[in-house]
Amino acid sequence: MSDRVAQAREDLAKANRILAHEEVIDAFGHVSMRHPMHPDRYLISRHRACELVQPEDILELTLDSVPVTATTHRLYGELVIHGCIYQARADVHAICHHHSSSVLPFCVTDVPFQPIFHLGATCGPMVPMWDSREEFGDTALVVTQPAEGQSLARALGPNWMVLMRRHGATVVGQSIQDLLFRTIFTSRNAELQGRACVMGDVAPLNDVETQKCFTFHQGPRPLERAWEYWSMRLQKTEALHALAMRALTTR
Amino acid sequence: MSDRVAQAREDLAKANRILAHEEVIDAFGHVSMRHPMHPDRYLISRHRACELVQPEDILELTLDSVPVTATTHRLYGELVIHGCIYQARADVHAICHHHSSSVLPFCVTDVPFQPIFHLGATCGPMVPMWDSREEFGDTALVVTQPAEGQSLARALGPNWMVLMRRHGATVVGQSIQDLLFRTIFTSRNAELQGRACVMGDVAPLNDVETQKCFTFHQGPRPLERAWEYWSMRLQKTEALHALAMRALTTR
Amino acid sequence: MSDRVAQAREDLAKANRILAHEEVIDAFGHVSMRHPMHPDRYLISRHRACELVQPEDILELTLDSVPVTATTHRLYGELVIHGCIYQARADVHAICHHHSSSVLPFCVTDVPFQPIFHLGATCGPMVPMWDSREEFGDTALVVTQPAEGQSLARALGPNWMVLMRRHGATVVGQSIQDLLFRTIFTSRNAELQGRACVMGDVAPLNDVETQKCFTFHQGPRPLERAWEYWSMRLQKTEALHALAMRALTTR
Amino acid sequence: MSDRVAQAREDLAKANRILAHEEVIDAFGHVSMRHPMHPDRYLISRHRACELVQPEDILELTLDSVPVTATTHRLYGELVIHGCIYQARADVHAICHHHSSSVLPFCVTDVPFQPIFHLGATCGPMVPMWDSREEFGDTALVVTQPAEGQSLARALGPNWMVLMRRHGATVVGQSIQDLLFRTIFTSRNAELQGRACVMGDVAPLNDVETQKCFTFHQGPRPLERAWEYWSMRLQKTEALHALAMRALTTR
Repeated sequence: MSDRVAQAREDLAKANRILAHEEVIDAFGHVSMRHPMHPDRYLISRHRACELVQPEDILELTLDSVPVTATTHRLYGELVIHGCIYQARADVHAICHHHSSSVLPFCVTDVPFQPIFHLGATCGPMVPMWDSREEFGDTALVVTQPAEGQSLARALGPNWMVLMRRHGATVVGQSIQDLLFRTIFTSRNAELQGRACVMGDVAPLNDVETQKCFTFHQGPRPLERAWEYWSMRLQKTEALHALAMRALTTR
Repeated sequence: MSDRVAQAREDLAKANRILAHEEVIDAFGHVSMRHPMHPDRYLISRHRACELVQPEDILELTLDSVPVTATTHRLYGELVIHGCIYQARADVHAICHHHSSSVLPFCVTDVPFQPIFHLGATCGPMVPMWDSREEFGDTALVVTQPAEGQSLARALGPNWMVLMRRHGATVVGQSIQDLLFRTIFTSRNAELQGRACVMGDVAPLNDVETQKCFTFHQGPRPLERAWEYWSMRLQKTEALHALAMRALTTR
Repeated sequence: MSDRVAQAREDLAKANRILAHEEVIDAFGHVSMRHPMHPDRYLISRHRACELVQPEDILELTLDSVPVTATTHRLYGELVIHGCIYQARADVHAICHHHSSSVLPFCVTDVPFQPIFHLGATCGPMVPMWDSREEFGDTALVVTQPAEGQSLARALGPNWMVLMRRHGATVVGQSIQDLLFRTIFTSRNAELQGRACVMGDVAPLNDVETQKCFTFHQGPRPLERAWEYWSMRLQKTEALHALAMRALTTR
Repeated sequence: MSDRVAQAREDLAKANRILAHEEVIDAFGHVSMRHPMHPDRYLISRHRACELVQPEDILELTLDSVPVTATTHRLYGELVIHGCIYQARADVHAICHHHSSSVLPFCVTDVPFQPIFHLGATCGPMVPMWDSREEFGDTALVVTQPAEGQSLARALGPNWMVLMRRHGATVVGQSIQDLLFRTIFTSRNAELQGRACVMGDVAPLNDVETQKCFTFHQGPRPLERAWEYWSMRLQKTEALHALAMRALTTR
């Protein structure tokens, strides 16, 4: 395995665990990354909870969501979310699908998700809503068919986040760091907007402010600072668990 | 003790501690499992908080909630919840009674509990409400008499979750894994619906979607993934506590 | 020191730390116990946060809140809350004053605190409100003068919990275990009622139910189960911290 | 380095980590202290998350926010918040800029921040609102230009806390302990007021009460008790992490 791929697998596994550690993702949800050398492939964990994902769990898939190498591992049921978006958006290099507590209320009410502070503007100028019912009728809501993944990708369009009615959200990024930043701070924005909108009328950022904040927070300064912070927090927790698990097996 | 019973006691004790660890249950509440070889018996912990339950705390009771072997241990006061439901529902193999923070508001208001995302549909097509006042007048609300347990079982009917006015909820499953999944994700659904309904009108899953999601999430894929996740989380915390307690006693 | 006093100091110190561990109390708030052998004295920590209180921090005071033995330690500013209630209520053996996040909203709105589930009925049939402004005008709200402590004790009357406008709550018990149970579950009730009342009209327990639940939960069964649970939780956390602090000093 | 400066760097680094540990600050936000011997300088960390700040990260800047000694470290983008306030307010010796979850809703609605309990009165008699749009139009909201910092300082005026529309808050103190106390308890007040105001009309402290509470809580008693409490809590967590990280590197 090349160094770049090894690094990508490590970064992707860590991003999985950071999103669990920062409480955006629980037992379900998944995170992927476009292959660093083969843009017609993507990397994603085998079927397991993000908190548990290690580099050795990462598989390589074509954009049709077929494993490059045959595997006996179980795969996520909603791979088409990733494959179809990578096909539609050459500028997207990382994708996260989640059902965070803060975002879900916006998927079942008519309250529009809006950036209400600078960091929330990482959602981008528009956050479209996708309702599986419109095209596919009454389903189990999970996105398992290519036609469903393509429909979701169309709904996302040129944007960076799409809400999914009665289901959750899918967020995309130009890099794994960019994705992490957007996923965490849009969840935080949802939390804040949710609190605020029951207190009174909410005055969000306007379009120019949103665009300026969006651009500002794609620079290396915010991304690197946040990545260091989330990485260190994760490392502290994991070091503790590693210590305990080792003690457990050697007593 | 047969291997199957030993395994059942271990799984049940672990399910107790997982429900505490995932913050569905605190000092009160209880979890039981139908005996794996004698369907006319069930397993449940002696009277203690779920977080503390170990395999050696598990007792064997008849469906009349009488210990199969005489015991000096204190028993839960609300055993009839378990015994009466196992008598009424041959398809039920595990039961949890709890007072989680997210579900309680639905027990004291007229807001109907509704599945608002795919994982919440594990509640099943209908969640009935039981009010002890209707049949038994003003009581201490705890369900201690066979007549009360039978009334609750009738209210549950063929469903998978019953709310109890001014008290909490009782959830049932086809297996301990199925029960855990339903208990945790219905609590999460309640949390989300509670947040959403103060923000605006909530558009829940319709009946067909609910049924499809319900079926989907009873497959081995979701159940095993979630069971692994909750088990690993619990193990990490418990390994840490074990390490500390050992150090405490050997210093 | 007699064994009974040593045990009382240990129990009281532990109750302090449990109330911090269960997140009812933060930097401020205090807990006391009537002296087990001299009913005209009470035990309370020197001036420090409950989370930090150890048996050796416990002082002995007369019911006029004067230290039995001269001390150079700083004392809490609001000792009269404790002294005046012990003077007025021979049946009270433990007192907690706190500003928990769940109870505070009831101190600044007109929403009446009401038991909404069986465990919340530990508040007793009535929870009066005390407003320092009525008798003492505009103050710094802290209860530091005997006249203020006596006024608060009068407001409490024969009840078990009194809310203090723009300030917090004072809870009393027949024993330290009874106090802990009431303090934690009334805070939990406040949390639940707060969530519920923004969702819709709340239908609380009626007077007969409240009385029956109140009586039920003063028996040894609930008190001992909860005391074991909170003690074990605290012990696990403290064992971990002890291990770490020891490692810190010996590296 | 003089002892006083070494102590200041240690206190400031600890204050950074306490504000992260008590969940007021996450990846962003920053804390500074006026130089203890050169009032025309201030101390602040290099560009990194507060949770990670150590004494060796602390830099020395002039009140024009220029490093006293040239440095290759990245600097915070919003240094002018600190420099401009120290220039305008000789009585201010410590400053915190944050985006806490509890305060943000007050920055995007018209609900006025008001002290609702004694500890919340540390905000002082008035909490002004600053809107960057009024003077600077549509920006990325971050305060990076001297003119913006000066405008913010003018909005703060003689007060102790200023809200920043669609952005966050800036809090100032007479000492690092005073700042910590105000920052944490005004965040807590915001949390409580936020909960209360959706339950019903909120009756806050009046002006005389606010002033009396404000004065009371600037005495050494509350400040030292809280400082000990937050320091011990931080130390317990950090000792644990230190133990784990050491084990990680020596296995």
